[in-house]
Amino acid sequence: MTLPVAPPQTSLTDIAAAVQPALESFLEERRDLVEPVGPVFSEATAGLERFILRGGKRIRPAFAWTGWLAGGGEADGDVARAALRACSSLEFVQACALIHDDIIDASLTRRGFPTTHREFAQLHAERGWSGSSEKFGEATAILLGDLALAWADDMFLGAGLAPERYLRAARAWAAMRTEVLGGQLLDIVSEASRDESEAAAERVVRFKTAGYTVERPLHVGAALAGASDEAIAALRGIGVDLGVAFQLRDDLLGAFGDPAITGKPSGDDLRSGKHTPMLAHALATGGDAADELRALVGTDLDDAGVERARAALRTTGAPSAMQARVEELTARATSAIAEAPIADGARPVLARLAAVLVDRSA
Amino acid sequence: MTLPVAPPQTSLTDIAAAVQPALESFLEERRDLVEPVGPVFSEATAGLERFILRGGKRIRPAFAWTGWLAGGGEADGDVARAALRACSSLEFVQACALIHDDIIDASLTRRGFPTTHREFAQLHAERGWSGSSEKFGEATAILLGDLALAWADDMFLGAGLAPERYLRAARAWAAMRTEVLGGQLLDIVSEASRDESEAAAERVVRFKTAGYTVERPLHVGAALAGASDEAIAALRGIGVDLGVAFQLRDDLLGAFGDPAITGKPSGDDLRSGKHTPMLAHALATGGDAADELRALVGTDLDDAGVERARAALRTTGAPSAMQARVEELTARATSAIAEAPIADGARPVLARLAAVLVDRSA
Repeated sequence: MTLPVAPPQTSLTDIAAAVQPALESFLEERRDLVEPVGPVFSEATAGLERFILRGGKRIRPAFAWTGWLAGGGEADGDVARAALRACSSLEFVQACALIHDDIIDASLTRRGFPTTHREFAQLHAERGWSGSSEKFGEATAILLGDLALAWADDMFLGAGLAPERYLRAARAWAAMRTEVLGGQLLDIVSEASRDESEAAAERVVRFKTAGYTVERPLHVGAALAGASDEAIAALRGIGVDLGVAFQLRDDLLGAFGDPAITGKPSGDDLRSGKHTPMLAHALATGGDAADELRALVGTDLDDAGVERARAALRTTGAPSAMQARVEELTARATSAIAEAPIADGARPVLARLAAVLVDRSA
Repeated sequence: MTLPVAPPQTSLTDIAAAVQPALESFLEERRDLVEPVGPVFSEATAGLERFILRGGKRIRPAFAWTGWLAGGGEADGDVARAALRACSSLEFVQACALIHDDIIDASLTRRGFPTTHREFAQLHAERGWSGSSEKFGEATAILLGDLALAWADDMFLGAGLAPERYLRAARAWAAMRTEVLGGQLLDIVSEASRDESEAAAERVVRFKTAGYTVERPLHVGAALAGASDEAIAALRGIGVDLGVAFQLRDDLLGAFGDPAITGKPSGDDLRSGKHTPMLAHALATGGDAADELRALVGTDLDDAGVERARAALRTTGAPSAMQARVEELTARATSAIAEAPIADGARPVLARLAAVLVDRSA
């Protein structure tokens, strides 16, 4: 794909670079509320600040900003800066989702650092405080995740856009936050109930990933910009297709990816037994390969076991079916990006974000 | 205190009765967002619905509504109904606070029913799902608390008031949610670090109870109504005084109250070792009584032990100091209610709420 030379904030890197000072300045302003509560609270919120500022790819603000451009929003000037602040607030929703998910999954590290609940459990232990360090860490992380969610709303609504813009975006904002929590609930219930169905796995992908990561951020940005219903419908369709393609590709990498590229142990998803649409599709084929997969995945596989599970997966045809679907969804999204009734200047930005999302090999 | 015959929504009972349909109607509207995610999500959110609708005293909406009246807001008509919806949204903030607090405190019951994390742990066990029922219950309750917090913002901002009202109330709304989380963090850190200081105990009362339960709800309502800075300052002062008086009185009842009246086992706070300003005051006196208290409170006391702890508390003079402070704060709030530059019609409403809050013997 040939792309024009990037003006400011039209690549993921540029958008991420612009999101960072927006987050820093919001956190700086928050001290007015935090400091009166006392130094104990400031010490805890510093944990949230570190989490927010050390980053991640800022993918949700990037799609929201691109939705803003696609909906005809200004690319620079005061209103654009306010819109960028509003879009940046999605990082606080994400902070809540990750901090709480890490408690739920009992994860040890996040972005190369101890997870928030572990960080505060360690603090508790180092200071020789009374009670369980683990419980203290979890309690602190529950409260800091809540704070992140409350601050997301404050940052979004305090970004300085005109009230009618917020009224237009209210439904998208509500849907985004409700659906990601819905997707997470589906995920834990699917796992607990050992729901092997493709429908269950696809719903989790639809709401927890595609809706929350791409579709609704585009929707929020476009609605803030005052996009037409047709533009919003087109962007949401693109968002779902890209988001699902991204997750299916991520699942392929989780089973077959090269650890030198993915940065995760080879076949990690097979060991953890992650309930992906690919696995559900494979199990639904029935037969010996499905039985073998049922016996292997979700167990502590050695390298040979991982290879056996991969072979069984391939036998079911699920990986190639998923790969075909990734390509179909990506092609459909690419056409839609070219043809949707959106601002022309946003097409290359969206195409570039799509490429980062779906072509990623890590 | 002689009060005029109550017009609608000027007593706690009347306000609570008006809050209920506002909550029901919001939850009904939410189905548009919940149902597309699927029946698993609907089943989980039904747990939040039950929690919200079974109630509590609706004390925070009541103070917010009274702040609205005090700030000159209309008592009936469409704008009043929108204001009542906005005030009712505080119950969602409270649902998040309670559901998450119950996880943190590992509480078994709330309002006479199993706590949310226990309810979903039981569901998990009954269905014979895989994994830990306890962890599943906690995960579900974390996510439902998050949902309540997100919905609080949606209900508040979607209540239909004019945008300039929300702009005026934004700071109060932000402060309320930040401060309650700050107060909860102070509380768990005080307990873990065995901070015996009066300052620490008073900060928890100030932010977790007084600010969140009375001061900021009054502030939110008054700011929505467009109250003057002087009215807001007066209402906040009244709110802090009433809120602190309420908590100090509650602490007295927690140590000395009659279980037939309080509904809690006699001396419950002494057994749990709750770090109240009264206890902190008692310990700060030093001497034998303080040493005895340090040995007794926070242990599994029998009735004789409770009586010894009470006697030691009395010896330090802490209970009478607290009682004197309750009276002083209540008297100051009562004068301020009579004299504050607020709408006259709100004075009896606020006086009546104050009486319910501080004179309560349960």
